[in-house]
Amino acid sequence: MNNTNKPQPTAALLIIGNEILSGRTKDANLNYLATNLGLMGVRLKECRVVSDDESAIIDAVLALSKANDYVFTSGGIGPTHDDITTACIAKAFGAKLERNAEAEARLRKHYKPEDINEARLKMADIPLGADLIDNPVSAAPGFILENVYVMAGVPRIMQAMFDGVKHRLKGGAVTLSHTLSATVTEGFIATELGEIQAANPLVEIGSYPFIRDGKLGTSLVSRSTDKAALETVLTQLRALVQKHNAIILEDA
Amino acid sequence: MNNTNKPQPTAALLIIGNEILSGRTKDANLNYLATNLGLMGVRLKECRVVSDDESAIIDAVLALSKANDYVFTSGGIGPTHDDITTACIAKAFGAKLERNAEAEARLRKHYKPEDINEARLKMADIPLGADLIDNPVSAAPGFILENVYVMAGVPRIMQAMFDGVKHRLKGGAVTLSHTLSATVTEGFIATELGEIQAANPLVEIGSYPFIRDGKLGTSLVSRSTDKAALETVLTQLRALVQKHNAIILEDA
Repeated sequence: MNNTNKPQPTAALLIIGNEILSGRTKDANLNYLATNLGLMGVRLKECRVVSDDESAIIDAVLALSKANDYVFTSGGIGPTHDDITTACIAKAFGAKLERNAEAEARLRKHYKPEDINEARLKMADIPLGADLIDNPVSAAPGFILENVYVMAGVPRIMQAMFDGVKHRLKGGAVTLSHTLSATVTEGFIATELGEIQAANPLVEIGSYPFIRDGKLGTSLVSRSTDKAALETVLTQLRALVQKHNAIILEDA
Repeated sequence: MNNTNKPQPTAALLIIGNEILSGRTKDANLNYLATNLGLMGVRLKECRVVSDDESAIIDAVLALSKANDYVFTSGGIGPTHDDITTACIAKAFGAKLERNAEAEARLRKHYKPEDINEARLKMADIPLGADLIDNPVSAAPGFILENVYVMAGVPRIMQAMFDGVKHRLKGGAVTLSHTLSATVTEGFIATELGEIQAANPLVEIGSYPFIRDGKLGTSLVSRSTDKAALETVLTQLRALVQKHNAIILEDA
């Protein structure tokens, strides 16, 4: 089945947080989003990680919003002084930030009345004109403004928010992916591999060296929205590694 | 000991590779570099992940090079068609790409004579004027051009390259970091926490919610190059969480 005539929208991820850039926290959102956008036929083109700095956030979100169909942000929407993402997104797009009645209602339903305070209600300040993104974990919503989807940084919450909002994204042709791993090092096959790539422009072939159980090998990852073109490449790649007497470790 | 008068150089990381953006591979280089630069007093200000695309790589490396003291790149310096980083860096800075005698000698020493081929020798093509970065794992060197440090993407090799080159970096004041984790949720302490932050501009206080053994809590991370200022903040933070009857889980 050929589905190459359905173009792939592009997306970017903006990760906001000093804790990622200081090394304290390992990001887990890039891989989750990359994988799940791929399943929908949306191509993640770029990711940026910036600190909790107003001009860094504004510059990055405007650049990424202009260059892509969708931008996702993660981090910086909590109640504390270092949570400045919402205010920055509002400023970036010249939108007024005001208390959102629906967001406030959700927070008041989630917290006991005596636990509601001004800091928590700050999480109900949402740019005017934005749509809310549900937060089934801890109530405080994300939001969508222009083509920017503003989500929490905590992976469990980010994933729940993405699951709740992905039906709104327009997917494209889904990229089919195949991995052929074999016990041959890149250098032996590089020239012929380049020829196969040149002859098959509908398929993107990536070559990744690995060391497994002390043995060197290469994973050849073929990606395409065209199944027939992908099959043609796979036949050629299998012949290539067999010619070099390699053992195929993975073909799926 | 106060070492705030030694400024911190800034750095950026540019990760190059379709495999990260497709979700196939989880990046491990950002966290390694963030942690190790921090130990030297170099502040990682930004990270970008771009695909194996010439203009994306060139645009990103020039922007990051201009804005930072150091840029590190990872990925795309192998022998295959999708390894285009070296050529892009040369083009970005208008440097001629030519066979480097020292790099070629290292490859010829590493491989058996019959295993040397043009694809592998491509890894000895280095921009004119660049310094080589040792690769103790698989011989093919990285290089330094202008303020850009070009390294392999495979974490083991990237780490070995960084270890070999870090003595060339000029470090700054080392940031001291302290984490105070307690069983109080962010919303209860956010207002007072903001006041402590405002009163202590030499310390950067980050607030990170967590769920541990089913219990909600907050990690307060204080970072500063000024030990006395950090101690002042820690005293105030301990008093803050104790006022809220929180149990301190981590104070180190």
